[in-house]
Amino acid sequence: MSAEMKWWGWGDADRRLDLPPAAVTALREELGVEPQDAGEPAALEQVSLPESRPISDAVRSAASEVLDGREDRLRRAAGRSYPDLVRLRSGCLESAPDAILRPPDASGVEAVLGACAEHGVAVVPYGGGTSVVGGLDAVGDGHDAVVSLDLAHLRSVDLDVRSLTATLGPGLSGPDAERALNALGATIGHFPQSFEEATIGGFAATRSAGQASSGYGRFDEVVTAIELTAPVGRLRTRRIPHTAAGPALRELVLGSEGTLGAITEVSCRVRPAPAVRHYEGWMAEDFEAGREIVRGLAQHHEAPDVLRLSDEEETRVSLELAGTDGLQKRALDAYLSLRRRQGGCLMICGWEGGAESVRRRRSLGQTRLRLGGAVPLGGSVGRSWERNRYGGPYLRDELMNLGVMVETLETAHTWSRLDELYRAVSAALRGALGERSIVMCHVSHAYPDGASIYFTFFARARRGEELEQWRVAKTAACEAIVATEGTITHHHAVGRDHAPYMRAEVGELGLDALRAVKERLDPAGIMNPGKLLPAR
Amino acid sequence: MSAEMKWWGWGDADRRLDLPPAAVTALREELGVEPQDAGEPAALEQVSLPESRPISDAVRSAASEVLDGREDRLRRAAGRSYPDLVRLRSGCLESAPDAILRPPDASGVEAVLGACAEHGVAVVPYGGGTSVVGGLDAVGDGHDAVVSLDLAHLRSVDLDVRSLTATLGPGLSGPDAERALNALGATIGHFPQSFEEATIGGFAATRSAGQASSGYGRFDEVVTAIELTAPVGRLRTRRIPHTAAGPALRELVLGSEGTLGAITEVSCRVRPAPAVRHYEGWMAEDFEAGREIVRGLAQHHEAPDVLRLSDEEETRVSLELAGTDGLQKRALDAYLSLRRRQGGCLMICGWEGGAESVRRRRSLGQTRLRLGGAVPLGGSVGRSWERNRYGGPYLRDELMNLGVMVETLETAHTWSRLDELYRAVSAALRGALGERSIVMCHVSHAYPDGASIYFTFFARARRGEELEQWRVAKTAACEAIVATEGTITHHHAVGRDHAPYMRAEVGELGLDALRAVKERLDPAGIMNPGKLLPAR
Repeated sequence: MSAEMKWWGWGDADRRLDLPPAAVTALREELGVEPQDAGEPAALEQVSLPESRPISDAVRSAASEVLDGREDRLRRAAGRSYPDLVRLRSGCLESAPDAILRPPDASGVEAVLGACAEHGVAVVPYGGGTSVVGGLDAVGDGHDAVVSLDLAHLRSVDLDVRSLTATLGPGLSGPDAERALNALGATIGHFPQSFEEATIGGFAATRSAGQASSGYGRFDEVVTAIELTAPVGRLRTRRIPHTAAGPALRELVLGSEGTLGAITEVSCRVRPAPAVRHYEGWMAEDFEAGREIVRGLAQHHEAPDVLRLSDEEETRVSLELAGTDGLQKRALDAYLSLRRRQGGCLMICGWEGGAESVRRRRSLGQTRLRLGGAVPLGGSVGRSWERNRYGGPYLRDELMNLGVMVETLETAHTWSRLDELYRAVSAALRGALGERSIVMCHVSHAYPDGASIYFTFFARARRGEELEQWRVAKTAACEAIVATEGTITHHHAVGRDHAPYMRAEVGELGLDALRAVKERLDPAGIMNPGKLLPAR
Repeated sequence: MSAEMKWWGWGDADRRLDLPPAAVTALREELGVEPQDAGEPAALEQVSLPESRPISDAVRSAASEVLDGREDRLRRAAGRSYPDLVRLRSGCLESAPDAILRPPDASGVEAVLGACAEHGVAVVPYGGGTSVVGGLDAVGDGHDAVVSLDLAHLRSVDLDVRSLTATLGPGLSGPDAERALNALGATIGHFPQSFEEATIGGFAATRSAGQASSGYGRFDEVVTAIELTAPVGRLRTRRIPHTAAGPALRELVLGSEGTLGAITEVSCRVRPAPAVRHYEGWMAEDFEAGREIVRGLAQHHEAPDVLRLSDEEETRVSLELAGTDGLQKRALDAYLSLRRRQGGCLMICGWEGGAESVRRRRSLGQTRLRLGGAVPLGGSVGRSWERNRYGGPYLRDELMNLGVMVETLETAHTWSRLDELYRAVSAALRGALGERSIVMCHVSHAYPDGASIYFTFFARARRGEELEQWRVAKTAACEAIVATEGTITHHHAVGRDHAPYMRAEVGELGLDALRAVKERLDPAGIMNPGKLLPAR
């Protein structure tokens, strides 16, 4: 099992990300952040939690392991969105689970859910605790208590080498699963930014997409079978490559975010662990030219396994924040000016697989990149990105220490409407955050018919009003997405933050269909209340 | 609109498939079919239908076009399964829709469904009439009348060239849609054997898979957005490449087989119409060696766009039935004996796309075919298959005229269990049909984790007991599939024939979830009764 995350932020408490002092100065200047805006999180012993409400003995005995210490509850009280971190760092939490139940296996989960349904206890399934959309909030919704259902003990690994599928327990973290499969020569190839902390169950429950999903497929694309343990019993889909036997129940469980039950087993396609991984940087003339390259790669089925394109702003800020002495930036500038190019948009292209396959596909991709006017930056830029691929949330912690608001959100649209969506969301965020803000974006996942765009935004955090400041920006962005008919989320899921937009996303009848399923599988309404579905 | 199918069989009444006389003799001999077993369908004027029950004026006026003539009703009384054809040819139909409603557009569909729900009229959505699983049976299920909802007028075509997506009306037949898109330079690439008659709405409602689905994707894989008009209103999913906003409602509508409502619009990914199409034949040493080649191609993501592998029996029978004078067979034998090979398993490999892409992918595929011990048969075998790719149902009509029972069924499993499934179903069919039968199989769709296998079986039809004879064989095959944990259908859908096996396929809780959705969207239970879901 991985070490626990630091309680107030991301990842390993001993690992800090050092920002170049020049970059800190420039960023403060740009955002109007003063040195006195800096602040550290509250001390662990100062954190206040609501009193724990009693959990019936029947529920306690159904779970073979119950944790209800203050730190245990604190550690499962929130996900890792910006508002979550604001609340955690403040040391004052308005909600937390009353206890943590940690059953030994799927039967234990079934027993726990049965007991909770009988005794009116709401249940928040818990994997890695990395939700960035409020998916872990301890919402009781009228129930007497709320428990966190920690799936950490469900860690089985069963590889079918011939069929290249693995059947996995939901409690395995990304690195746990990859280590176990790598030892057998296989990989899932699912590497979201949350990889180091998130779990297999969470990947499935939220339809996670990873940095290499252009090549390996999103997690929901590689899942071939799933088991859901609901309060009324277990639902499992067959372990087969495909079926036309009616609507896809697997696709009803994927993305259900704990609202129907807990995912207790996942079968997914794996690939042979790649012999070669080659990542490299490219520079596109501008965001539009870069998008055309990405579109061409996707539509010709020649996309690299990793394919990212930053807009001008993200390119500028990434280069500013990267490298400890700006050397890389200077080398890059020199290189680009030799090629008579200034600025532009950074692309990361990565190929993985057998040596011959990588050589062939890379050659195809490079041809299209060059045709689109992109300039190669070489492997060092790719390796630099690869080294820092999971670093974003560490950076966020450092920026929050400085007094910076940092948040991300993502959406997707068809190629015909992607620019419209990009402009609308950019304008909405800039409007909400004011002039002294940074709003930047990258194309994170490409399809033949469109792409996902991922925004990161910075502003000076308004001390004491962080949540309100966040809500204004988030609302503006969401409304812009809805108005442009994009999706409210491409891979962060719905949780509590996006639930109000689900009506626009799927319509009243779509909500009705989802509610009908929920009422059948979870008639007592105990499963992850307040998430996914909007209040009526 | 295409010309109507012949009422008692498949396709164009003027197009007959001539079987080589030697093949007819050999087949009769093998199956024990006597010349006196031959028989033609009843004459149209002799066909008896149940009396038409009255349809309320409210329902009639909601549909702007109502057909209730005897031939209209007959033509929508059945699909095209073997039992359907037995019933049609007998001239005695026990059920038929009381009328055919043909609304002008999606709003008309909504009005019709509203009126039908109010007046207790069951509705069977109708596209091309090609169901092979009893999906079109006019089952009233306690309602006062049954109508066929003919979607023929919903024929819009809207291509988004930039995003390579097309938004299509459900009433377009395969050739209608391809003609319209081809004129704009695009193709869906969906070519099931039913292509010439089936419709876009039917492809979506049944999760159709086509002969080129290894390359282009199954129809349910290319659908990006869908509109369902249910009795309680309309549900549409966003036209976006992907979303993580909860369970996939699109996947709830796909495969719903008219039981939730009628599909009134489909958006799907298209590709540039291929500049080159190259189909060729190969001969694998045996079925196992061939399957290993197919597995290797799929797992290395090097599968041709069309990839089929016949077992020894299907290879033998195909060659016997192909060609009018056996010349092709003799040429093949000569060729293979030159290569010191007798018999073996026929493979059809087809590549489509740009010339350079076809050249490259074909070269990769050929390397793997050769490595697996397959021998090339050249392009003429491929072209011969291509010419006859939609001929199967015509052949069935001819064989039925001779007095032969002809049926197909398909399933799928992981590579680890595919051979077990193949043996179990083969044995079950042979056991049910007796010694004088032909049971043959091909791998029809390949995935990295497994494949679909498609069985065709012949026996002497037991005159007057055809349906019972069929039921015994079908039941044996289905029970073998269930016992082996394969899927009851890979792409033929569920309809009425597979509904009894849905409990084994998805479990009681899976059925509950599907029923919950149906009860919400179709509270009066008028939509395609008796299909998909088993009786309680």
